[in-house]
Amino acid sequence: MLGRVLCTVLFVGALPSPAGASQGHISIVLLGATGDLAKKYLWQGLFQLYMDQVSSGHSFTFHGAALAALEPGQRLMFDVLKQLSCPPDEPPNRCAVLKDQFLKLSQYHQLKTAEHYAALNREIETLLSQEGLEEAGRIFYFSVPPFAYTEIAGHINSSCRPRAGAWLRVVLEKPFGHDLPSAQQLAAQLAGFFREEEMYRVDHYLGKQAVAHILPFRDQNRQFLDPIWNRHHVERVEVVLKETVDAKGRTSFYEQYGVIRDVLQNHLTEALLFLIMELPANVSSAQEVVQHKLQAFQALWGLQRSSAVLGQYQAYDSQVQEELPEARGHVSTTPTFAGVLIHSHSLRWDGVPFLLTSGKALDERVGYARVLFRNTAYCPQSGTLRDAGHSQCKPKQIIFYFGHGALNTPAVLVSRNLFRPAMPKDSWKEAGARSDLHIFGQPLSDFYMYSPVKERDAYSVLISHIYHGRKDFFITTESLLASWAFWTPLLDSTSRQPPRLYPGGVENQQLLDFEMVAGGVEFSLAEPAELLHPSGQMPSEFRAIQSQFRQSPLVSAWAEELIARLASDMEAAAVRSVARSGQFHLALSGGSSPVGLFQRLARHHHGFPWQHSHVWLADERCVPLTDGESNFQGLHRHLLQHVRVPYLNIHPMPVHLKRRLCVEEDGGAELYAQDIAALVANASFDLVLLGVGTDGHTASLFPRSEHGLEGAATVVLTESPVKPHQRMSLSLPLINRARQVFVLVLGKGKHDITALLSRVGREPRKWPISGVSPSSGQLVWYVDYEALLG
Amino acid sequence: MLGRVLCTVLFVGALPSPAGASQGHISIVLLGATGDLAKKYLWQGLFQLYMDQVSSGHSFTFHGAALAALEPGQRLMFDVLKQLSCPPDEPPNRCAVLKDQFLKLSQYHQLKTAEHYAALNREIETLLSQEGLEEAGRIFYFSVPPFAYTEIAGHINSSCRPRAGAWLRVVLEKPFGHDLPSAQQLAAQLAGFFREEEMYRVDHYLGKQAVAHILPFRDQNRQFLDPIWNRHHVERVEVVLKETVDAKGRTSFYEQYGVIRDVLQNHLTEALLFLIMELPANVSSAQEVVQHKLQAFQALWGLQRSSAVLGQYQAYDSQVQEELPEARGHVSTTPTFAGVLIHSHSLRWDGVPFLLTSGKALDERVGYARVLFRNTAYCPQSGTLRDAGHSQCKPKQIIFYFGHGALNTPAVLVSRNLFRPAMPKDSWKEAGARSDLHIFGQPLSDFYMYSPVKERDAYSVLISHIYHGRKDFFITTESLLASWAFWTPLLDSTSRQPPRLYPGGVENQQLLDFEMVAGGVEFSLAEPAELLHPSGQMPSEFRAIQSQFRQSPLVSAWAEELIARLASDMEAAAVRSVARSGQFHLALSGGSSPVGLFQRLARHHHGFPWQHSHVWLADERCVPLTDGESNFQGLHRHLLQHVRVPYLNIHPMPVHLKRRLCVEEDGGAELYAQDIAALVANASFDLVLLGVGTDGHTASLFPRSEHGLEGAATVVLTESPVKPHQRMSLSLPLINRARQVFVLVLGKGKHDITALLSRVGREPRKWPISGVSPSSGQLVWYVDYEALLG
Repeated sequence: MLGRVLCTVLFVGALPSPAGASQGHISIVLLGATGDLAKKYLWQGLFQLYMDQVSSGHSFTFHGAALAALEPGQRLMFDVLKQLSCPPDEPPNRCAVLKDQFLKLSQYHQLKTAEHYAALNREIETLLSQEGLEEAGRIFYFSVPPFAYTEIAGHINSSCRPRAGAWLRVVLEKPFGHDLPSAQQLAAQLAGFFREEEMYRVDHYLGKQAVAHILPFRDQNRQFLDPIWNRHHVERVEVVLKETVDAKGRTSFYEQYGVIRDVLQNHLTEALLFLIMELPANVSSAQEVVQHKLQAFQALWGLQRSSAVLGQYQAYDSQVQEELPEARGHVSTTPTFAGVLIHSHSLRWDGVPFLLTSGKALDERVGYARVLFRNTAYCPQSGTLRDAGHSQCKPKQIIFYFGHGALNTPAVLVSRNLFRPAMPKDSWKEAGARSDLHIFGQPLSDFYMYSPVKERDAYSVLISHIYHGRKDFFITTESLLASWAFWTPLLDSTSRQPPRLYPGGVENQQLLDFEMVAGGVEFSLAEPAELLHPSGQMPSEFRAIQSQFRQSPLVSAWAEELIARLASDMEAAAVRSVARSGQFHLALSGGSSPVGLFQRLARHHHGFPWQHSHVWLADERCVPLTDGESNFQGLHRHLLQHVRVPYLNIHPMPVHLKRRLCVEEDGGAELYAQDIAALVANASFDLVLLGVGTDGHTASLFPRSEHGLEGAATVVLTESPVKPHQRMSLSLPLINRARQVFVLVLGKGKHDITALLSRVGREPRKWPISGVSPSSGQLVWYVDYEALLG
Repeated sequence: MLGRVLCTVLFVGALPSPAGASQGHISIVLLGATGDLAKKYLWQGLFQLYMDQVSSGHSFTFHGAALAALEPGQRLMFDVLKQLSCPPDEPPNRCAVLKDQFLKLSQYHQLKTAEHYAALNREIETLLSQEGLEEAGRIFYFSVPPFAYTEIAGHINSSCRPRAGAWLRVVLEKPFGHDLPSAQQLAAQLAGFFREEEMYRVDHYLGKQAVAHILPFRDQNRQFLDPIWNRHHVERVEVVLKETVDAKGRTSFYEQYGVIRDVLQNHLTEALLFLIMELPANVSSAQEVVQHKLQAFQALWGLQRSSAVLGQYQAYDSQVQEELPEARGHVSTTPTFAGVLIHSHSLRWDGVPFLLTSGKALDERVGYARVLFRNTAYCPQSGTLRDAGHSQCKPKQIIFYFGHGALNTPAVLVSRNLFRPAMPKDSWKEAGARSDLHIFGQPLSDFYMYSPVKERDAYSVLISHIYHGRKDFFITTESLLASWAFWTPLLDSTSRQPPRLYPGGVENQQLLDFEMVAGGVEFSLAEPAELLHPSGQMPSEFRAIQSQFRQSPLVSAWAEELIARLASDMEAAAVRSVARSGQFHLALSGGSSPVGLFQRLARHHHGFPWQHSHVWLADERCVPLTDGESNFQGLHRHLLQHVRVPYLNIHPMPVHLKRRLCVEEDGGAELYAQDIAALVANASFDLVLLGVGTDGHTASLFPRSEHGLEGAATVVLTESPVKPHQRMSLSLPLINRARQVFVLVLGKGKHDITALLSRVGREPRKWPISGVSPSSGQLVWYVDYEALLG
């Protein structure tokens, strides 16, 4: 071993150094040096780095490491190294020399125990001292399974840190967790060993030339894009990775992850964010980019079960059965295909659908991110007579083509009727017209098309960026966690959902086509099985149980379906009321239960007659309306700011008069009562939406309240047992004048009170909710399974 | 003459009457019996009516009338009648008999003087008496130039009304006026002679089978259309009439009208309204249809100069010079091509572009109304491998094809991936697949296509509807005036605008392609002349004069450009302010001047940071906020209901406290002053928008006002010389604390005060506006040419 090191050392010293002075030494340690990824990409990437930087003034040593003992490990590793190749434009002579040098600079280490790491460190130290080299830095590339991360990280941190003044860069390969909690845990562990700036999390899509060029493209073409890069001009954004291969041979990995974790959460999300983030002033500032990325995440609507369609190729389950003995007898529901609809509520993108799609066993291998623009033109000349050139009536699109597919090269394509893009001439060249090819339904001649001057493998690109410390090409902890926070609710809500089976390859036909419906997506075709057993009912209707609760109608389902049903029933009530009287007076409760309902109303109920609706509060906390605790604030944030209720039809409770809160002599309650009397016929609301507290309170009517449970007052000040104590509330007698009252009860925490209420009679002083009983209206209970069944 | 009448009488008596009893006699008088329209369509339509109704139990006589004397008129008319033909499915024998009968029932009358009309009436009366016939009714068909309408109408009213109990129907052919005032005048004149139900205004498009079927189609396919017939699913609506002919030989008519009056105001508008109106419960109720049509008109945004692109085929002007001696030396600006963008602000259609296009000398003759749906699907299988069937990724459209063009038949087409429409089998048949044909870029096989069982000429259809009293196929006075009210502003604003010249025919190429830009339309290509003399400046930038007024910057232009400029400047101020402080505090004035500005901000300024803006009132009338006179109401109607200002950022003036108006002791002014002090840093608004009254008042600060011109009060109650007298207003000292003040002055009526202000100094007690002078902010005057130049 020492022989090798000395040999290396001699060689290092012999390197030509430009400008006379050495820039220092870099030690690169590849952990998992004999694994698949290393064989396919990483050693080649390191060799490429060496070829590119041999004259940089840095000297290098390359340390392959694995668990295997020295002898077999060495053999395995050098078998890989012998296969290294030079790019076609490298003169064969120089290639041979460089490859020989690279082999001499490379050595194998067994890294298993703490002592192994200490030994590695000693070797590096020895080399540096003996050669009198300054240390520039060390790169540790983790090409190992994630369960090994923390142990290795601990060893590096305790034994292998470089000398003071030199940098440490640890390169991590996904998966970075399995969901938000596991990603947070892993991130916390790593943070115990490394500083944020030391970690380089790889998403190799960021090294793909077409992906990496999205931000520079947007930057260099600002003048053309600024006016059109928004919801007024963009019809949709698609980010797609289609594979022909399936998961055979890899199901032990795949079965734990599935397509969303494997492709959508990382690769496709990153590409999407490059497209939709606000453009930083400096697109190469890692800090600005990550900040804008986080803002873009914050503006995305949360995903729901209905946001995705999931599929699984038919052979997958039997492959799992074959490869995973422990899976015998279980049916896998791991998705191998997903189509996901994402929306942003940013001013720029509000309403524009972002469609992320990926799958295995599809008809072709291709990846792209595509921005399709609306057709804003009308062309009076009929198509057949029109010049094939720049007609504004042809589709307009910008495509970042990741590779493979019909073009078989990374590319940037811009419709000729949009603009001729500015492209950096040193790295992208205009591609010749290949008029035989069609792409997205158009001949290639309809596009300005650019391909890389030199096609580079993603890993080579990323290794070069690690060398240069370009952190903007890597995933920061913050943005990783933001992505998991975004995807985890979908993963949770779909985890038990059986995916649609598809035959694979071209046989899939239209089986995986999907459509945007009511804010979510659905497969366009019914599943063949369903075609055999047609049914008028939708699955969600099956799930909602209808029954009785306290002598009133009960609707029950899992929370998401229940809220969907409640929202539909509210819209129907509103439409009926507007047809009857021209108005709809709706009183809404605060709290957390209705938030999902408000969001659903805002996002899915475009037919709701908001223009003719009045929105009242059932109760309010005595805090300023601008306070985050205010019921009105929640209502505004989740509902009112997204719909169009006329200003004068919105009726917040006057809890804040004369710059003080709920002072009795200010007469806020009387003021609200007067408004109701003046505007609501017979003071009979068309619909009151209530919740129930674990103590049986409803609106802000609490057990044993002195006000509001009976008597003539319609609006009252009350006291809550919890903070903020002061409240304003509609009274029980007023609530009972309503035409309809819907009570929404959600969650396990409400099970006890639900069970209790099912048994007791009308005792409003004990349980105010039990006093809700509209004198000539209808009461309907919406109780989810968790509250109902515990 | 008497001989003919007797002969007719004998013949009438000889008609077979079903059910034994006569249904009464109908006299049909065709005025303009020898004119073009009569020759081409009307006589044939009357003959068709006769053929259809010969066994109805009604007896008929047909009276052709013109100014020509009896002898030549008779000859001319019978030359036309001899050419009448039967439909191909009529047995030749029956045809010959019916034609012979029809000729015998027809006679010519010279109708020039009052005596002529009296004579006609006597003849009809004599016939009825002699034959002992009940009179069912009389139809007078006006196929005469509009200048003759009132005289003829007077004669009919005074001399030719039918006997009591019988109906009168007068049929009027367009043009029905030239703009709103002339249409109102004509309508008022006609109303002096006829009751509304007696008038049948023809728009022959309502007789075209494909147009007439729009409402029945929507009615019969409600279940499919209800979910998709709205802004969420419809991408655009196009209504198009393209002609290959030009106006040669008709320029004396055409030069007075142009394409908008000739085609868009009537035919295309009617077809559009059938598509967009709310569907009446009973689509054959004339009353319900017209009511819904009027509502649809009310929901349309007003047209502006930028709403249209206009063209004129190159040869038109020389044709005018040739045919109209009085035009020599003038250059005609009459448009022969127009593309117009229309928007509705109804809940159903908000944001969906309606494109109306028509022109002469185009590449083909075709007419259609087309509803194009959004693509809501994603299809993972690549196009080439996809089944040609019902893929959801193909375009989805519904087309009412008026006739001519590639199909050469009226038709209704529905994309097969939408639904199979319900069509009445007795009148529409499914057309066979003609896979060689493509329409709108798709093979015909992609559509369900229906064509009429029996193709019928529009005039035959309408004459039958007149006979049956089906008023729903005719234009009522109300809807005619609504249409003129809609189109007249565009006609006025474009009357002096030179249209783009186009060569005609297929040579037009892409010269007439146009695009939607910032709420209006523009030609896609620059005019060839402009290509030769490129210029960085847009025409509108040329037009805005920049100068000084009262030592402050002055921007001046025609009103529309001025408002566009002001709106842009306001957006820029808002964006700057939000970038600086995170907020934008804007105080707006009421009155009529800013309405156009509010609409422009609502429609064109999608980048305005409303989410971060606070909207305050500069002044308010002491009326309830729900009152139509309230400044806030106007602001809400024209601006706030269309944009997204957070509820708590909207600050109406509290003029209505304790259910009373501007009572000093209620402290409304102080309340508003406190709100400003609490929310606006230094009580310095970012922008105050003011107007000027003819007396020099601004906001609600009137000459010699006791309050608000000086002193510490920031919000004051004032007295207006005009009703409503009581006002609330920001004070001059507060206004002068603003960072920017923009003053908008529009219209000839403001010329005198503008001229005065240009001379006087700072005398706020005489002219409060002269006291506006921000102490450390900027004042800019926006004065239109009419106010500036008188």
